Amino acid sequence: MIGQHPPTEQIVLENVLAALGNPIRLAITRILAEGGEHPCGAVGLRLEPPISKSTLTHHWRVLRDSGVIWQQPAGRENLLSLRRQDLDDRYPGLLDAILGGARADTSRT
Amino acid sequence: MIGQHPPTEQIVLENVLAALGNPIRLAITRILAEGGEHPCGAVGLRLEPPISKSTLTHHWRVLRDSGVIWQQPAGRENLLSLRRQDLDDRYPGLLDAILGGARADTSRT
Repeated sequence: MIGQHPPTEQIVLENVLAALGNPIRLAITRILAEGGEHPCGAVGLRLEPPISKSTLTHHWRVLRDSGVIWQQPAGRENLLSLRRQDLDDRYPGLLDAILGGARADTSRT
Repeated sequence: MIGQHPPTEQIVLENVLAALGNPIRLAITRILAEGGEHPCGAVGLRLEPPISKSTLTHHWRVLRDSGVIWQQPAGRENLLSLRRQDLDDRYPGLLDAILGGARADTSRT
């Protein structure tokens, strides 16, 4: 069962930062930042190294509960999308700075 | 004994976000963002609610190890300062977006 998504006005910065302060969740967010909706299975397949389904379930929940992603049931899977507009409304420039920082870190390795 | 501070090039975004994804550490960072050096005791006194010394010691370490703050011994205390230049160099716009978001959240409550 999918839990509740926080209304935009109830998103809390510390929760967003804690959610994104994890390499797997940051990688997931970079994928979702491509835009649109992504089946959770397809996102999972793009992660290196592969992550177990139970661990992924935990990460979807952290990202959903913090207000970073939408998670919508669609048949046997869920469709994930980034709550970009909500995050940009609450914290202008934050998501772009984080995504830019992640790209910069990746290009340094 | 003060541990090592990570060189600027070894700062990792996920660690910075995880460090700041905590209400106490975010409050500490907002104080240090005023600029200059602050004795750790003085910073501790400004936190609401009051935090125990052992808990504060943990938070200094998380902020130092992630590259967010300098922690320099000075007699019986430590002087804390924000590694603003290093963070701005590595992640342009990130600190400003986070500090702005924290102010916005505070003004909503």
